[in-house]
Amino acid sequence: MLPRTYCGDFTVMHIGQTVRLNGWTQTNRDHGGVVFLDVRDRSGLVQVVVHPDTPEMHKLAHAMRQQDVIEVVGEVIARSEATVNGNIPTGEIEVKATDIVVLNGSETPPFMVDDDCDTSEQVRLEYRYLDLRRPKMQRFMELRHRVTHAARNYLDSQKFLEIETPILNKSTPEGARDYLVPSRVYPGSFYALPQSPQIFKQLLMVAGMDRYYQIARCFRDEDLRADRQPEFTQVDIELSFVDQDEVMAVAEGLLRSMFDAGVGIRLPEEFPRITYNEAMERFGLDRPDIRFGLEHVNVTELMKKVEFKVFREPADNGGLIKVMRVPDGAAQLSRKQIDDYTKFVSIYGARGLAWIKVNDKSDLPGGLQSPIVKFLPEDVLAELLEASGAENGDLLFFGAGDTQVVNDALGHLRVKMGHDLNLIAENDHRFVWVVDFPMFAWNADEKRPEALHHPFTAPREDELHKLETDPLNICSQAYDLVWNGTEIGGGSIRIHKPEVQARVFKTLCISDEEADEKFGFLVKALKYGAPPHGGLAFGLDRVLALMAGVDSIRDVIAFPKTQKAADPMSDAPSEVADAQWKELGLRKRPTIKES
Amino acid sequence: MLPRTYCGDFTVMHIGQTVRLNGWTQTNRDHGGVVFLDVRDRSGLVQVVVHPDTPEMHKLAHAMRQQDVIEVVGEVIARSEATVNGNIPTGEIEVKATDIVVLNGSETPPFMVDDDCDTSEQVRLEYRYLDLRRPKMQRFMELRHRVTHAARNYLDSQKFLEIETPILNKSTPEGARDYLVPSRVYPGSFYALPQSPQIFKQLLMVAGMDRYYQIARCFRDEDLRADRQPEFTQVDIELSFVDQDEVMAVAEGLLRSMFDAGVGIRLPEEFPRITYNEAMERFGLDRPDIRFGLEHVNVTELMKKVEFKVFREPADNGGLIKVMRVPDGAAQLSRKQIDDYTKFVSIYGARGLAWIKVNDKSDLPGGLQSPIVKFLPEDVLAELLEASGAENGDLLFFGAGDTQVVNDALGHLRVKMGHDLNLIAENDHRFVWVVDFPMFAWNADEKRPEALHHPFTAPREDELHKLETDPLNICSQAYDLVWNGTEIGGGSIRIHKPEVQARVFKTLCISDEEADEKFGFLVKALKYGAPPHGGLAFGLDRVLALMAGVDSIRDVIAFPKTQKAADPMSDAPSEVADAQWKELGLRKRPTIKES
Repeated sequence: MLPRTYCGDFTVMHIGQTVRLNGWTQTNRDHGGVVFLDVRDRSGLVQVVVHPDTPEMHKLAHAMRQQDVIEVVGEVIARSEATVNGNIPTGEIEVKATDIVVLNGSETPPFMVDDDCDTSEQVRLEYRYLDLRRPKMQRFMELRHRVTHAARNYLDSQKFLEIETPILNKSTPEGARDYLVPSRVYPGSFYALPQSPQIFKQLLMVAGMDRYYQIARCFRDEDLRADRQPEFTQVDIELSFVDQDEVMAVAEGLLRSMFDAGVGIRLPEEFPRITYNEAMERFGLDRPDIRFGLEHVNVTELMKKVEFKVFREPADNGGLIKVMRVPDGAAQLSRKQIDDYTKFVSIYGARGLAWIKVNDKSDLPGGLQSPIVKFLPEDVLAELLEASGAENGDLLFFGAGDTQVVNDALGHLRVKMGHDLNLIAENDHRFVWVVDFPMFAWNADEKRPEALHHPFTAPREDELHKLETDPLNICSQAYDLVWNGTEIGGGSIRIHKPEVQARVFKTLCISDEEADEKFGFLVKALKYGAPPHGGLAFGLDRVLALMAGVDSIRDVIAFPKTQKAADPMSDAPSEVADAQWKELGLRKRPTIKES
Repeated sequence: MLPRTYCGDFTVMHIGQTVRLNGWTQTNRDHGGVVFLDVRDRSGLVQVVVHPDTPEMHKLAHAMRQQDVIEVVGEVIARSEATVNGNIPTGEIEVKATDIVVLNGSETPPFMVDDDCDTSEQVRLEYRYLDLRRPKMQRFMELRHRVTHAARNYLDSQKFLEIETPILNKSTPEGARDYLVPSRVYPGSFYALPQSPQIFKQLLMVAGMDRYYQIARCFRDEDLRADRQPEFTQVDIELSFVDQDEVMAVAEGLLRSMFDAGVGIRLPEEFPRITYNEAMERFGLDRPDIRFGLEHVNVTELMKKVEFKVFREPADNGGLIKVMRVPDGAAQLSRKQIDDYTKFVSIYGARGLAWIKVNDKSDLPGGLQSPIVKFLPEDVLAELLEASGAENGDLLFFGAGDTQVVNDALGHLRVKMGHDLNLIAENDHRFVWVVDFPMFAWNADEKRPEALHHPFTAPREDELHKLETDPLNICSQAYDLVWNGTEIGGGSIRIHKPEVQARVFKTLCISDEEADEKFGFLVKALKYGAPPHGGLAFGLDRVLALMAGVDSIRDVIAFPKTQKAADPMSDAPSEVADAQWKELGLRKRPTIKES
């Protein structure tokens, strides 16, 4: 049998050759008695021509339906100049069929198997095998393969070992909600699916594996917000005998190789870094999008001078007042748009959105147009213009109030306006590390510090002495990587000394019993020669969605679940047989009405 | 800071250099006041010397405990000729320490972290992080990494796409028992963990992905016999537009690359093939170990001539009589040993083990020593010697009775004797494909044919016409790969035409409703242009155990479970909080006493 040539691989070099190809009939056109079939496989599309001088085959070709699977033998010929198609790579040739076999027919598909199909996602998921046959989805799956393969090659070159950690784990009621798996051998007991391989990868470092990686499936039984999946994939690494800089260098190399393989762009040799505090100050968010300006300026101190209650009260009471300068915003933004932005920031809890249009900064206060100018003395206005760097024609937005609310509101407003005002260049990819996160946040409900990352994150060595006396002002050795304003990964140096781990548990008000119950085996392991270690994980689905330029991670996952964690194709989850309930020693809990 | 050199990487080329190394203190010896530390990391071991002229460091080194984690800075020096250690790669040098830091201490480990530790497996699993720190286990993990990485590279070079299929699936009460995952969103419904990605990989072929691979985690909730694990890993591939030969060629290439990377041995370009029938005839098992002889000879026809009931009855009633010649067995095997083998075959249901010692084949019947010779006429004895190829000094073993029992008994006896008689050369790796399996086996209980592989396996094209009339005499397009008598993988060409799938379901007495309920989405997918396709899966854990030369797959899995599917380290499975039960709408089934 002739070897198969992939449809997309045909070039003018094949002219004159007898070839075999396989694929799906995409279109079927009759031009003056000659039938033209577009035949597609994963690699691309080729045109097959069938002349009326082969009447049986011609009849077959005529009757061919979309998505019929065929085998074609024929001769590659050059297209006439008039029919050359510059839009497809195989556009200079066609295959003159000498034999066509229909390997399998297709019923009429529920939607066009084509890139510009606009079927609902529910139907796409129900017929995922047809949805994935669309060229775009096939390219996404190829992208996923290329990127993960590049990641593996890079990590292999850096002496990482791929090690599989278990999926059937112990449930630890920490973090998100676990998916549970009832045990048949121990009725009433459960395994839990891992939210991440965190503890196991630390144990591998204790085991002296030195460098571990895994492209690991993780699970979270959460109510699915926007773009989450019950199971997702993480590029997970851990290294021994390293500091933060070394982990970050490896992560940068890893991402460079993934990015290069995925979209063919060389990333810079070193990514910029910003501290958590600076990110909050300048951008209001701990995942700053640094592709554009609109940076914030803190004017809290200045506002301690004013009578205007909206600004003065938060300034006096540990709150925050920030100004965000929009260059040329005075003319660009209508009153209506400003009202819309005011509504927008209210989502984040802001009570209003004060603004000043700078018409002529040499004329104070007359050159400023704003409902609040009358409340601010001239010297404050002058200082404000100075601090914000305002120029004539600019617009200033203000946030004032609770620190968190102001940062949230102005941070998100900044991002929205960056898009609205077209301040973001196309194909601009900016990575930035956020470092020096606080070790703890104050949990006001439970009146205790809680870990901002996880309780195994190491505090900075130089601040360790403040662990008991001033925990809220300690930074951890955690780092997040942000790509165009989206957090795509993060990690930390871990605690490797059992006594430090015990101190951190104490600060978190976790009792010895609780620590033992939840993390006993890790704490125990630290006592047997745990090396200094740290690591990081990337959200692979998110990285791929960003590379592919799609909004939803579902488009880069072969078989995703719906927002309700169901699979419309297989109908999972589903009822199971009584025998299965019995074997697991389970029964349904009566609903409230019945009980 | 000096870059780190791995302990095992030191050579004479480093002599004179100042270096930094990290690792675990393995031993600590004092020779005439000089302290010698053996320091190990994943790469190997290096000797560190500490002289008394650095008193503080000397004191520290003296006090060093096993498994303390240290950092050493020092100078690489040549060992004196008398102290060169030819047993380790770094045996020509040592590191004269100028600085030592204890990064973390270790309590006394519960067992020696060394290759020849003979602790119970239960303790090894409880302290798996220490067990894995043993050089042997680290080498197994490196082997696993190397082999899987080679597999991925090979499959990438063959245009396979790595595609992840879901872990949260629909339960299909077919095959082994599913692990179930209760759904919180749909109380009373369950996901199931996949026993294999079978249906999904077929759907990927329908989706036009052309070539799929995955190193896939699979799950079976079985009572763990000998060497099974609740979760295991499979190298899983599927291809479109191929026949059996093409799948097998890819599988051979894949295995060659894995074998080369794993143990550095080149496998033959093509593996031999044997039909299922021939394997059963010659070896009694469908996973023949072809490293040695002791082949079986079928003498059923011959025995139709004799009166001797033990042979005549099965011969007349569709049973089987086989002889297995043991060259030089007459002298080698004592009566006691023959009795032991008789006991052995009784495990497989054989009622006895007839034998003949061939002392002088020119003298019939006097030259034959056996309890049964008197029952067999001289011409039959002559034909028997001829058929079995017996020579003087040989021993003949007989199996007679039910075909399955005879094959089982003599098949396993053959393997046992191959080992007992040292007929197997060391480091001999023999692969063989078993092909032409029967499509169906007769299920006597349910009085219906059942699929020998799975119901998606394609029958041979040339026998398809007998599907309704003579199903038990149809071969499938399934193939198993056997390595030294162990089945390590298998697969088949799948059914791609919906009408053939319907006919197979009918033959299996699976109703339309049942088929729809269980496999509806696959059957539906076949209607929309499913290409011809087939594939295969290797059991990765088994392959690695064979490569590593260990009996248990647990030795090549980082964190395996016990025979009772538990993890002594983390204590999984475990009880969960009441809130978790409630959220899932579950409660414990009362035990029989209570109900």
